[in-house]
Amino acid sequence: MLRSKGKRLARKLVVKRGKKTGAAPGTLVHIGRESDAAVPVRLIEYDDDEYTDIDDVDPERIARLRHTDKVSWLNVDGVHKPQLIEALGKELGLHPLVMEDIVNTDQRAKIEDYDGYLYVVLRMLRFSEENNEIQSEQLSLVLGPHFVLSLQEEPGDVFEAVRDRLRAGRRIRFMQADYLAYALLDAVVDHYFVMLEQLGDQIEALEDELIATPSPDTLGKIHHYKREMLLLRKSVWPLREVLSRLSRDENPLISPETRLFLRDVYDHAIHVVETVDTFRELLVGMLDLYMSSVGNRMNEVMKVLTIFATLFMPLTFIAGVYGMNFEYMPELEWRYGYPMVWMVMIATVIGLVVFFRRRGWLSL
Amino acid sequence: MLRSKGKRLARKLVVKRGKKTGAAPGTLVHIGRESDAAVPVRLIEYDDDEYTDIDDVDPERIARLRHTDKVSWLNVDGVHKPQLIEALGKELGLHPLVMEDIVNTDQRAKIEDYDGYLYVVLRMLRFSEENNEIQSEQLSLVLGPHFVLSLQEEPGDVFEAVRDRLRAGRRIRFMQADYLAYALLDAVVDHYFVMLEQLGDQIEALEDELIATPSPDTLGKIHHYKREMLLLRKSVWPLREVLSRLSRDENPLISPETRLFLRDVYDHAIHVVETVDTFRELLVGMLDLYMSSVGNRMNEVMKVLTIFATLFMPLTFIAGVYGMNFEYMPELEWRYGYPMVWMVMIATVIGLVVFFRRRGWLSL
Amino acid sequence: MLRSKGKRLARKLVVKRGKKTGAAPGTLVHIGRESDAAVPVRLIEYDDDEYTDIDDVDPERIARLRHTDKVSWLNVDGVHKPQLIEALGKELGLHPLVMEDIVNTDQRAKIEDYDGYLYVVLRMLRFSEENNEIQSEQLSLVLGPHFVLSLQEEPGDVFEAVRDRLRAGRRIRFMQADYLAYALLDAVVDHYFVMLEQLGDQIEALEDELIATPSPDTLGKIHHYKREMLLLRKSVWPLREVLSRLSRDENPLISPETRLFLRDVYDHAIHVVETVDTFRELLVGMLDLYMSSVGNRMNEVMKVLTIFATLFMPLTFIAGVYGMNFEYMPELEWRYGYPMVWMVMIATVIGLVVFFRRRGWLSL
Amino acid sequence: MLRSKGKRLARKLVVKRGKKTGAAPGTLVHIGRESDAAVPVRLIEYDDDEYTDIDDVDPERIARLRHTDKVSWLNVDGVHKPQLIEALGKELGLHPLVMEDIVNTDQRAKIEDYDGYLYVVLRMLRFSEENNEIQSEQLSLVLGPHFVLSLQEEPGDVFEAVRDRLRAGRRIRFMQADYLAYALLDAVVDHYFVMLEQLGDQIEALEDELIATPSPDTLGKIHHYKREMLLLRKSVWPLREVLSRLSRDENPLISPETRLFLRDVYDHAIHVVETVDTFRELLVGMLDLYMSSVGNRMNEVMKVLTIFATLFMPLTFIAGVYGMNFEYMPELEWRYGYPMVWMVMIATVIGLVVFFRRRGWLSL
Amino acid sequence: MLRSKGKRLARKLVVKRGKKTGAAPGTLVHIGRESDAAVPVRLIEYDDDEYTDIDDVDPERIARLRHTDKVSWLNVDGVHKPQLIEALGKELGLHPLVMEDIVNTDQRAKIEDYDGYLYVVLRMLRFSEENNEIQSEQLSLVLGPHFVLSLQEEPGDVFEAVRDRLRAGRRIRFMQADYLAYALLDAVVDHYFVMLEQLGDQIEALEDELIATPSPDTLGKIHHYKREMLLLRKSVWPLREVLSRLSRDENPLISPETRLFLRDVYDHAIHVVETVDTFRELLVGMLDLYMSSVGNRMNEVMKVLTIFATLFMPLTFIAGVYGMNFEYMPELEWRYGYPMVWMVMIATVIGLVVFFRRRGWLSL
Repeated sequence: MLRSKGKRLARKLVVKRGKKTGAAPGTLVHIGRESDAAVPVRLIEYDDDEYTDIDDVDPERIARLRHTDKVSWLNVDGVHKPQLIEALGKELGLHPLVMEDIVNTDQRAKIEDYDGYLYVVLRMLRFSEENNEIQSEQLSLVLGPHFVLSLQEEPGDVFEAVRDRLRAGRRIRFMQADYLAYALLDAVVDHYFVMLEQLGDQIEALEDELIATPSPDTLGKIHHYKREMLLLRKSVWPLREVLSRLSRDENPLISPETRLFLRDVYDHAIHVVETVDTFRELLVGMLDLYMSSVGNRMNEVMKVLTIFATLFMPLTFIAGVYGMNFEYMPELEWRYGYPMVWMVMIATVIGLVVFFRRRGWLSL
Repeated sequence: MLRSKGKRLARKLVVKRGKKTGAAPGTLVHIGRESDAAVPVRLIEYDDDEYTDIDDVDPERIARLRHTDKVSWLNVDGVHKPQLIEALGKELGLHPLVMEDIVNTDQRAKIEDYDGYLYVVLRMLRFSEENNEIQSEQLSLVLGPHFVLSLQEEPGDVFEAVRDRLRAGRRIRFMQADYLAYALLDAVVDHYFVMLEQLGDQIEALEDELIATPSPDTLGKIHHYKREMLLLRKSVWPLREVLSRLSRDENPLISPETRLFLRDVYDHAIHVVETVDTFRELLVGMLDLYMSSVGNRMNEVMKVLTIFATLFMPLTFIAGVYGMNFEYMPELEWRYGYPMVWMVMIATVIGLVVFFRRRGWLSL
Repeated sequence: MLRSKGKRLARKLVVKRGKKTGAAPGTLVHIGRESDAAVPVRLIEYDDDEYTDIDDVDPERIARLRHTDKVSWLNVDGVHKPQLIEALGKELGLHPLVMEDIVNTDQRAKIEDYDGYLYVVLRMLRFSEENNEIQSEQLSLVLGPHFVLSLQEEPGDVFEAVRDRLRAGRRIRFMQADYLAYALLDAVVDHYFVMLEQLGDQIEALEDELIATPSPDTLGKIHHYKREMLLLRKSVWPLREVLSRLSRDENPLISPETRLFLRDVYDHAIHVVETVDTFRELLVGMLDLYMSSVGNRMNEVMKVLTIFATLFMPLTFIAGVYGMNFEYMPELEWRYGYPMVWMVMIATVIGLVVFFRRRGWLSL
Repeated sequence: MLRSKGKRLARKLVVKRGKKTGAAPGTLVHIGRESDAAVPVRLIEYDDDEYTDIDDVDPERIARLRHTDKVSWLNVDGVHKPQLIEALGKELGLHPLVMEDIVNTDQRAKIEDYDGYLYVVLRMLRFSEENNEIQSEQLSLVLGPHFVLSLQEEPGDVFEAVRDRLRAGRRIRFMQADYLAYALLDAVVDHYFVMLEQLGDQIEALEDELIATPSPDTLGKIHHYKREMLLLRKSVWPLREVLSRLSRDENPLISPETRLFLRDVYDHAIHVVETVDTFRELLVGMLDLYMSSVGNRMNEVMKVLTIFATLFMPLTFIAGVYGMNFEYMPELEWRYGYPMVWMVMIATVIGLVVFFRRRGWLSL
Repeated sequence: MLRSKGKRLARKLVVKRGKKTGAAPGTLVHIGRESDAAVPVRLIEYDDDEYTDIDDVDPERIARLRHTDKVSWLNVDGVHKPQLIEALGKELGLHPLVMEDIVNTDQRAKIEDYDGYLYVVLRMLRFSEENNEIQSEQLSLVLGPHFVLSLQEEPGDVFEAVRDRLRAGRRIRFMQADYLAYALLDAVVDHYFVMLEQLGDQIEALEDELIATPSPDTLGKIHHYKREMLLLRKSVWPLREVLSRLSRDENPLISPETRLFLRDVYDHAIHVVETVDTFRELLVGMLDLYMSSVGNRMNEVMKVLTIFATLFMPLTFIAGVYGMNFEYMPELEWRYGYPMVWMVMIATVIGLVVFFRRRGWLSL
């Protein structure tokens, strides 16, 4: 089971780009999990008194988005249809490189500012308890003056609570698109904590196992989680910089008020990064502990072996001597030869026990 | 016992936020230890000639705080009642994010400056000798023009000496709110040294144990303290930056004179951070020493085993040969066969002892 | 096989410069693989409506390059003929140090800007599945106002796709020389991913082997790949800075539009560097796992040995006792002596088995 | 012996501050070694033609110091009398925090500039050959316009050579107080080299011991010196920054000429820091070597055991077979049974020796 | 042999300064290898048409150097005569600290700019194949407006090629003193590559030995080279900064054209530093491999021992049983007792072999 995961891990690091290599930049070739699923484009449009939610918006409507004062949130659940992305991109005036990054689903988290909009890539992470590994999905966010475009690899997301707040007409309805973008980022980072909790529970259980019943299997699990931490670290590390830049750079698309909120998400991101590092160091400490325990147990086994061997070898030798068939062995004929041999043997045992006790070996 | 602590450590790293995920920012949901205790709001108000101390101030009074020239110190012992925090926050004009951070008790130490006040989060740490672990409590400080608001998770604090000085009418009574904030920070950081002393004593005792009577239990303790250091480091590291910014940034709320004093607290904070690092490296060194000792002891055990086995195996073999029942074994009938065998055996032993001595193995 | 590779690795790090030491700067002495192959200079010249491709251009033609508005791409497949490089360099007005760097094929990736042109050195890397090692070739790029000069060590490159796009008359034909340079850099970095994929596959296979059938040979392979990662890291690390400077510095030779594209290549370069680091950490983790497994297996072997030895030593001793030839051994004459000895033996075995079970050793 | 040192090391890291915690800042409570010794205040006053040296100056004199053009050097040998420090501090106009830092003898090296004077804390270190540990003393320097105040914990210092030069009327007499401060710093840092030499000799001797006659005691010493390096590093690391700031910051108290000399001391400080790091890495390397040697020796012991056991076990078994008492064992009655058994045994030994030789085990 | 080297290494790190401690700055006390050799001062003076070479120049001539337009190169082969250095220094107007640094031959590489001249210290390194260690010599360079002063510890240097070029009247004759200084630096750094090549060859040979015939001696060598790398790293690391500052800082003594050349030397220096780091990591990897191999071989030895012991112990026990002398042992009298025992034994062996095969232990 662990082996098959090994396979998948390496593939997570470098997604096969065979079909892509050598292509001109801006060529939209999807890199990632293949799929044939339909890709609905959901549009939520709102201002302080109106709220519209269209499950699958039609293209003309999108063209009009740029000329409205309402805030629009376009959410696309799937990037495996390059032609759709291209159409969307053209309507919204996106740079070819942005469209390329959207369909190449192995990007690092990054932020790029283009003329008139901001492009943010994040990794959405979830811990799959089924096979104990972290799964990663690319989320692209485009923040324009009055719209947010979010693109995910698969249906199902962590934004339901944001939609609820929009529907409920709470504060978010009075804010601009930058606040919506913040709310989405916040939801993603908040979900990291859920994953960290699950991971923390696993690591705790593993530590209990390590102390109670360490086995080679425990070692395999420590190794497995260390590897997952490697991957996780690679995913969350660049997040730090993305959020730092979002909350610090002066960008006309983001109001000072929203920047305060982004500073808060930035704090959370640092918390996530540090927790991942701490988990990793915990796992390294557990590996050390495992190695030391193996050494300890070996020592114990060796002591038992040594005590038995050094006790019985002299005794067996003595018995062997008097099992020899020499014709002239005077002891054999002594009346008390046999009891005397027993006494010699007992004395030997006592001597050795005293010797071991002095060396502190009998505290098994 | 160590296992149950393991559990708690991981929980310290990521506090369960299940109920929080997806909530709008500024939603006050308490994250931390649940409690039903009443939350008294203690107000100390003073200037150079007056000093008032009210155990549980009533709300209207707080509203008036902002319009007085006296220095007010509001201390709240418990953040598990969000509605209280909300009421307080509104009276003092705090940003929703500040209120949120106050009730979420797993913050990293940080400093944020808002319009008209400074918000500082610190971790108060104490070493519990009972279960040998470090306990952490979140302290929020809000420094306004004439007031300091301090919020702790639980009653009982390290500020008694500050109150004594206030009551005694010493220099602190002639100073502004920034100096009071400094005095509180100084008390917190000073208390870190008490904790470090206790930890230092424990680590020393552990080192003595390691050298005198190392056992698998010692290994468990080294691992335990290494883990505590991980946690401690995560708590004190950001403190450095908080105090650096407090003592360096030009902020109208903090007078240059107070900044000098904050520089002093900053020096202490660096001292704390470095001591934690040194403790950690000491523990790593102890782990190495433990591992090497295990190797050494194994070597010793092996030498004893090898000496016994290599001495007695040839002897037992010789005895075995003359225990064979062949009809025609001339040696058995020799007059001096038996003594000769003994001499062969003794010669074998001498030869082996010489061999071992040359290899330097007999210096047990 | 691994040994011969070892040799080559060290040579990759420091190319023999015996013949070079002490020479004046600007002396063109080729450092690298010797060769007698002819060195064709291929010229591709284009603008939006014309495209010329000359396999081996003659020298006068090069002189004219600087006075045309078309974009020219001069590609040289081999730097082992210093006089050719010198001639080219003079025609294009290159600094002696640039020419020297071109023929010394052990440069780190770097970028230098000279008056009127940019000089970039990169390493082209490919993974040779034949002997499982990474092979490295130096690529020098000179970007002038209307031309790009590319120099490789050997024929055969990763630029075929770029040539196809040029021939096909796509967007690249409407762009200037800076875009061509970008296209070449992009092709090189894109090819790194191909190499990383191959390496990733190898490391995965190695991990499978490590978990299924670890052997000393596995250890040798882990060591081998760790060494390759060392070399690889040294090659790709400076790439980061080169691309960072290309995409950030304001240089009149590079248009703002192209800078956007270079920023994209920079992201890829960071991805490469991080993946190399992750591979390395994976290998370190695998080494740890190997070491722990060796310890585990040793422990298991020791347990089997100890169980056998401690079971049979007492039994053999008992048998030995009743093999003694004393004349007066009453047990020997007892009617049920023999069965009683068997019962004693069986009791001993049962006692030891219980002892081992309590220590948890019988869960072989 | 090593254990008692362990105790002291931890105390060096955190000096007990029980009596101090909670005190107001500026409260002078001495933290450090208690003492009742008298504290002489020695004054040396000089300019280019006059030189006065007063062993224990009386207080009024100090007040006049600030109004003279001569350079005054006040040296205090002991800080355990807070009232004396307070008196001195008031005469010279020192900030309460400076006085507090002077009497708290566990400061890190630091530099602070106050209005009109500079305050520098350094650690004076010496290697005590008696118990092989580094002893540390706090030196406070206050540099004013015409005076230097130096405060040490104990009598006896490294400044005798400076006094000689002052008495001898050499260049130092023509310079200002900043040059005197430099001369004192230089003397302290120069003395570090004496300590490093002694440490270097100890480490060399230890390395010789490690290679010639490694023993568990060697391991204890390596651990001991590694710990001392930890402490030493903590002491010298901040020195770097202190001297860097002294030699770089523009401060009216320090002339550009003196800054050149301070740059030189800064170079020495870097040399010290690097040497400490190198010593530490040497010790880590020695620990690795020790561990590997233990493994090597274990391997050797195991080989000897295995060779003996595998040679004699089959032989003993064969002898055992023909020691059986079956009535019908034809071999026993054969005429050449006994010699044949010997031949079988010899053949077995030869076979095993060949087997071992092939595995390369007989090169004991 | 390795031990005597150990001694020398530590001495390299801290040169005995006993005689120096406490001396006034600018006191010229030679620290380094003592010698009585004469110290020739060689003067080479040139411009584009003249070239003079004087083996041992007389002092008055030096005074005139500062008033000529020709470029002068003064080379001093030995710094053990402080009075000579002092005389030279006075003629050329050097600061006392420069003269002090020249005679103290344990300086780190550094660059200092004084009024009117630059002072550069470098370490010249060579690998002595005789005792496999790196030897280090201090080179001081003073670059003035029309002269370069170079001071070495011993005769014999790497500058012969530079002299040849000067004699031959090549480009260097048309350049100023800054170019000469560059040429000397370039020669020194170029020589580092020769040393790295030799080291690389040694490390390769060591790796071959490690894979083919690892022995405790191999371990000693790995440790030795790791230590040499420590020293080497300490020598070359500061070189980086020296050359970085030389090639970047605007200094009127260095022309922009020469700065380009210095940038090239800087690239080489980085290459050197990285190669040293890579060598070190290679050695660390080799140490790991050695340790793992030791574990592997131990495992193998243990398996052989265990197989033999577990095979023969039951057999010997069975033989022992039927060697007992009970009067009533029915089996002994059975007609087929003896063959049956053999069959039991053979069955036991087969059972154990099957057991071992299942555990995968018989693939010796």
